[in-house]
Amino acid sequence: MNAPTSAAGLLPQIHLREVPQALLDALVARFNGRCSRAQAVREQHGRDESSFSVPPPAAVVFAESTADVADAVRLAAQHRVPVIPFGVGSSLEGHLLAVQGGISLDVSRMAAVLAIDADDLTVTVQPGVTRKQLNEAIRHTGLFFPIDPGADASLGGMAATRASGTNAVRYGTMRENVLALEVVTAAGEVIRTGTRARKSSAGYDLTRLMVGSEGTLGVITEITLRVYPLPEAVMAAVCSFPDIAAAVRTTIGVIQLGVPVARCELLDGQTVAMVNRHSGTALREEPMLLMEFHGSPAGVREQVEAVQALATDHGGNAFEWAATPEERTRLWTARHNAYFAGVQSRPGCRAITTDTCVPISRLADCLLESVAEADASGIPYFLVGHVGDGNFHFGYLIDPASADERARAEGLNHRLVARALEMGGTCTGEHGVGLHKMGFLLSETGPGAVAMMRAVKQALDPLNILNPGKIFIA
Amino acid sequence: MNAPTSAAGLLPQIHLREVPQALLDALVARFNGRCSRAQAVREQHGRDESSFSVPPPAAVVFAESTADVADAVRLAAQHRVPVIPFGVGSSLEGHLLAVQGGISLDVSRMAAVLAIDADDLTVTVQPGVTRKQLNEAIRHTGLFFPIDPGADASLGGMAATRASGTNAVRYGTMRENVLALEVVTAAGEVIRTGTRARKSSAGYDLTRLMVGSEGTLGVITEITLRVYPLPEAVMAAVCSFPDIAAAVRTTIGVIQLGVPVARCELLDGQTVAMVNRHSGTALREEPMLLMEFHGSPAGVREQVEAVQALATDHGGNAFEWAATPEERTRLWTARHNAYFAGVQSRPGCRAITTDTCVPISRLADCLLESVAEADASGIPYFLVGHVGDGNFHFGYLIDPASADERARAEGLNHRLVARALEMGGTCTGEHGVGLHKMGFLLSETGPGAVAMMRAVKQALDPLNILNPGKIFIA
Repeated sequence: MNAPTSAAGLLPQIHLREVPQALLDALVARFNGRCSRAQAVREQHGRDESSFSVPPPAAVVFAESTADVADAVRLAAQHRVPVIPFGVGSSLEGHLLAVQGGISLDVSRMAAVLAIDADDLTVTVQPGVTRKQLNEAIRHTGLFFPIDPGADASLGGMAATRASGTNAVRYGTMRENVLALEVVTAAGEVIRTGTRARKSSAGYDLTRLMVGSEGTLGVITEITLRVYPLPEAVMAAVCSFPDIAAAVRTTIGVIQLGVPVARCELLDGQTVAMVNRHSGTALREEPMLLMEFHGSPAGVREQVEAVQALATDHGGNAFEWAATPEERTRLWTARHNAYFAGVQSRPGCRAITTDTCVPISRLADCLLESVAEADASGIPYFLVGHVGDGNFHFGYLIDPASADERARAEGLNHRLVARALEMGGTCTGEHGVGLHKMGFLLSETGPGAVAMMRAVKQALDPLNILNPGKIFIA
Repeated sequence: MNAPTSAAGLLPQIHLREVPQALLDALVARFNGRCSRAQAVREQHGRDESSFSVPPPAAVVFAESTADVADAVRLAAQHRVPVIPFGVGSSLEGHLLAVQGGISLDVSRMAAVLAIDADDLTVTVQPGVTRKQLNEAIRHTGLFFPIDPGADASLGGMAATRASGTNAVRYGTMRENVLALEVVTAAGEVIRTGTRARKSSAGYDLTRLMVGSEGTLGVITEITLRVYPLPEAVMAAVCSFPDIAAAVRTTIGVIQLGVPVARCELLDGQTVAMVNRHSGTALREEPMLLMEFHGSPAGVREQVEAVQALATDHGGNAFEWAATPEERTRLWTARHNAYFAGVQSRPGCRAITTDTCVPISRLADCLLESVAEADASGIPYFLVGHVGDGNFHFGYLIDPASADERARAEGLNHRLVARALEMGGTCTGEHGVGLHKMGFLLSETGPGAVAMMRAVKQALDPLNILNPGKIFIA
């Protein structure tokens, strides 16, 4: 049942369902100018950062409220037409592609911060709010929201893919930080999951069932998130190492010691060079850990001493500090742009991005074998990692016109995932399954678990209209 | 659809299904002496710490392996007979009661620690391992497992009820600490969910769907858990306050400041007195916070100073310290036995235990109104709280023979839950829904979300054989 696309790197299976004129008429009647059939709008909503090419959706509806979402889904359900939720379009795994046709439901205009409950360390937002917009909105409260995928993604999209980023090693992922949701079901009904209480044993964990369901079980229309007091002291440091192994072994030591490092990112030497060219930084072009420490002044000092000692043991240099908040921001912006720095390093290329995550004790083995394999392939790549979590990304930079390069890159990805799974890891740490990893999901979790996912999908979306053809073939 | 039992405090609805002799014969053929029909064994498996009385299951099967569990479930499925997983019997909400008849599946003999991956800070256990057994087994590694409900519960039961305890404020609950599961489905198939990687975006979060599903979606047969390095420094302190409000307001300040306190427990004065009598402690019989601080020596010192300053602002006394590990253990054992201390304080009584959890800013309002109401009722009670989470428990100590006392206690519980829900909280922070809170779950989450839970249940257990009649009526 699993699509051969994922393992073999072929194009996705496309089975366009008919979108009847009656539905398009009904959407225009309901949404007027907020339902667009313009080619440019459809094309913009029919792609993401993945390297697939699929015909665009038949129309795009711009929702401005939960009622809009519910009405759009209800109309689509009446005509059994797929609905694909759309935030900012930064998916890497083909989540947004209309492989079964249908309409794109753009929630980017649902961009209100609905509540800031600073005393409870919670906020409630609409799904189109991006992570940067949220942090702007709460800056005056002394709180921050830590989860930061590379893109300035929408929080709805981040919940839907169970996203994380550089701070997950300390603060967790969307799995740990979504407290409650409002969701429009496949029947167009509005439900609420969870509460603002920090913990609950009240029935099935529908919140976490929706988080990571990639738009296939419901459309997220409100999100209640945990936020955190800005730490009293923040220090960011760069540490260069003679080789990748030394940087990774330092990281393993940090995690095993329980040092509460806030960020611990790996870049290999050639990726640092790409970042320097893209962002105008002057970082030493060697394997590097880019770290941040949060806490009280004394606590941060202790963490720094512990990590510097470990790094020195592994041949790392003395830490270089980002002394001011501005320098720190510049450094992390450069890190967040590593993906774009990589893509820019080979004009006209597309990146095939990998996303494995392994138990920390296996990180060095998994990473080093994969580096050797990538080097031997001759395909240019960048390498970054949220290594404190055991999570890392290769971006294989391929000529999209070259079937050979694509096949070789997919081969590298395939062997990397197989290696990670053998080591007790996962095929995706934070990007999701989408189109690209359906076969890998099956390898990882086995047919029994995928059958259980399929049963849940069929129970909650019997017409298979919510982002069909993603995660598994329903 | 919701049972009137929960809201009104009536006895549970009992609809015994037939257990055919052919099933009993097949179970005996498969399990020999490990299938018991002895009255005493059945009765022991037909009750828990809840105050309900229901006929016992028709038989008890003692499973010793995943294959045993799978075979027992398959045989039960062939005859459409309910199966109720049983760990140590410490449920408080009637989870174990055979309200639709059937067989009890005792997994307490599945008590092996299967793997200790100290380098990855993970362990894998069978479901019958208790939290204390796990901590014994990993003591030599310098790691510990923090989640500690009052009882020495089985880890399978703790996963099934999404349990937490005193350390959740720092380390999270079973929701955050279960990484992976092996589960026997309603069809008797064995599936695996999750991996040992710290994070994953690989498909639906079946792990967290199973955690908190109270045995209604599958029988947990293996659990992979996060464990933590023992902190370098641990300090436990008691702080007495002039009134409950002062203790609660101190707690709110601690959380809002982001002090990473490891434990922050409230006991009211009369509960301290019960604990003193039960455990031979000599604690000051006033409202008290019982706290623990984990970290480096300097970090612990900073936390202590911050919390002592807040406590002093609210009229709290100077901290009294549990100076040695032995004193600390004695103090926490006394706290863990508060439930039994309470029950012992009124000979022959049963406790009707409440379990609300509210956003931290509402904790004082919720708790103080509930104390006033309990005082006015004349029903004796104990009061303890994991107040750092916004979670607290009254135990109303009723004469089980008095319908009037039961009704009044249920009335108190009913008003307390209504208050917590109005404040954005949940009807159960850690005990689960079971039989007792089905009506409350409906009030909390609404019919749409319960309908979604029911759809998931029907998809995964179409014959409704897995612990039927719990959480909601399927």
